[in-house]
Amino acid sequence: MNMKHLMIVLTVFGTLTSASAQQYASITASPAPLVLKAQGSFYLGGEQESQTKDELGGICPPGHVTVNQMYVRYMIPQERTDSISFVLVHGMHLSGKCWETTPDGRMGWDEYLVRKGHAVYVVDQVGIGRSGFNQKTYNNVLAGTVKHINQTPFSRKTDENSWTNFRFGTKDGKPVQEAQFPVNSLEEFSKQNVPHIMRLPSPDANYRCLSELSAEIKNVVLVSHSQSGAFPLETALRSRDGIRGMVLLEPGGTGSGYSDEQIKQLAGIPLLIIFGDNLTNETGMPGHVWQNSLNGWSRLADAINRAGGNATVIHLPDRGIHGNSHMLMMDKNSHQIADIVLDWCMKNGIKEGE
Amino acid sequence: MNMKHLMIVLTVFGTLTSASAQQYASITASPAPLVLKAQGSFYLGGEQESQTKDELGGICPPGHVTVNQMYVRYMIPQERTDSISFVLVHGMHLSGKCWETTPDGRMGWDEYLVRKGHAVYVVDQVGIGRSGFNQKTYNNVLAGTVKHINQTPFSRKTDENSWTNFRFGTKDGKPVQEAQFPVNSLEEFSKQNVPHIMRLPSPDANYRCLSELSAEIKNVVLVSHSQSGAFPLETALRSRDGIRGMVLLEPGGTGSGYSDEQIKQLAGIPLLIIFGDNLTNETGMPGHVWQNSLNGWSRLADAINRAGGNATVIHLPDRGIHGNSHMLMMDKNSHQIADIVLDWCMKNGIKEGE
Repeated sequence: MNMKHLMIVLTVFGTLTSASAQQYASITASPAPLVLKAQGSFYLGGEQESQTKDELGGICPPGHVTVNQMYVRYMIPQERTDSISFVLVHGMHLSGKCWETTPDGRMGWDEYLVRKGHAVYVVDQVGIGRSGFNQKTYNNVLAGTVKHINQTPFSRKTDENSWTNFRFGTKDGKPVQEAQFPVNSLEEFSKQNVPHIMRLPSPDANYRCLSELSAEIKNVVLVSHSQSGAFPLETALRSRDGIRGMVLLEPGGTGSGYSDEQIKQLAGIPLLIIFGDNLTNETGMPGHVWQNSLNGWSRLADAINRAGGNATVIHLPDRGIHGNSHMLMMDKNSHQIADIVLDWCMKNGIKEGE
Repeated sequence: MNMKHLMIVLTVFGTLTSASAQQYASITASPAPLVLKAQGSFYLGGEQESQTKDELGGICPPGHVTVNQMYVRYMIPQERTDSISFVLVHGMHLSGKCWETTPDGRMGWDEYLVRKGHAVYVVDQVGIGRSGFNQKTYNNVLAGTVKHINQTPFSRKTDENSWTNFRFGTKDGKPVQEAQFPVNSLEEFSKQNVPHIMRLPSPDANYRCLSELSAEIKNVVLVSHSQSGAFPLETALRSRDGIRGMVLLEPGGTGSGYSDEQIKQLAGIPLLIIFGDNLTNETGMPGHVWQNSLNGWSRLADAINRAGGNATVIHLPDRGIHGNSHMLMMDKNSHQIADIVLDWCMKNGIKEGE
């Protein structure tokens, strides 16, 4: 076992207790200035809710707060190549951070797409990160007015589970062959992992927020990842207003349960689905197998195409691209994957106007 | 009562149930391109912790996660006027968002300081926003293995309480005289309000992270607000490495409890404290009065100066600047306040080198 493997195994098994600032030092300088017409952030959606002093945590008197809002950060290049805007939606246990600087310090998809001339909007899902969450039940449980079993769990993923389930490496601590994930930066990836609130009120406020965002900024390509895989479809089924394309990076689940009527609706918007390599790698979570996801979503793509739609499924190894993990936007060839998306947008006429 | 006041009162009392996307539409375009040498994000600090399946929320098998990490987003201008970097630390119930685009769509301090030629680092406090928090106790309570009374409350602030306590207006729903806070955008401000975990393990990991950050990037002016008021001092007492200045915007508490030895240490770094107007406005939270904070921090500043230090307290009305709220970085004259900070940096020799 060489030093690299030793370090990985140490990291995987938690022996490296003190995380260093190495990631900051390892950030790669940009090749040329980034020239922005605008950058900033705002919130979408949200509803006012009345809460008691207990629900507010015991300090603030009763009153109103906002719940179910969505945080959005944007960058708009000075020179736009067209009017497409990319909306990037992270997956489970992550935040919008996953599209920013990679764990090993390379440029994230957010800046890469801006440098390619597109406006980019990165969101935090409702209930995560800067979008906040509704804390009232936790505080009611603390106050003894609600039973503890009514508390929604916060899910969290371990480094060991990420290692196998995200196909960075195998159970014995070795990276997969031709690993594209920057396996020496697992420690940095681990820091991006935040608690994911397991249930949101129905209907999922994320769809409303993404729908509002698309209608507002127009010519949107909605990009989802993993747990948010179906978000672009669910948003489009709510309203197609402003949505020009849907890109699903390793969507979770199997894309099942859509009615013929819904499939007909979805057929109106170009759809791209991308999966990486080693889909049959042991996952450490029985039944949650990425090959099943590829199979399921491929069936949905076929159904959409039969309904006159334009759905493409790319399994990267079929194109000679090997070693990609579940974290396509962080892999060493992440810009190559982004280029595949941009190429697909061009070839499928997702350009100026509606 | 005119329409403006009516809208404010409606908002304050929660009658505006559906929040619109108006804030996005109202964002003001930048006057000139923003030219960045670099932008991106990274994490600091963090420790590995072993957690059980219950603690992880019931899905993931036992293993290791990272806790106590800090999210940092940075922008570095192409043309730097000097080597000063500003580190912006938000207050209670907020996130790094508070330094970004204001609730009424104007440029935040983050971009303003970058356009003035400085590198800017915006953090989310440990336990907030993209920094995540340690979810294990909540999940243990859910599983029944820990008593509900051991759960840490998540504090949240209401719109009504912000209105008076942050001196946007008076209890009858009227804005304060010459109000600088954009009172028509209270709804947008409300969306920035997120649950604030009430206790972190001791010692507070924020100090370690800010210390690490300062040592790494050098020539740092640490800017805090409200609940994070004392963070720059606590960080400097840990290590002065990299810290060139400390700016406290309306720090909470009274700055008491520092020993003579600590005051001597603090005297080595220039300190600026700024308070807004209407400090004796009714707060809605008994005992938490901003005038007390100004008095207390002024006493500390005096003690630092007696120890040979360089501490300045600015009460804005004394300079003829009226109507400022607690949210100095969001007020209509927020850039004027930033200019006061920049002017202070220049006059106090916080420039090149250490």
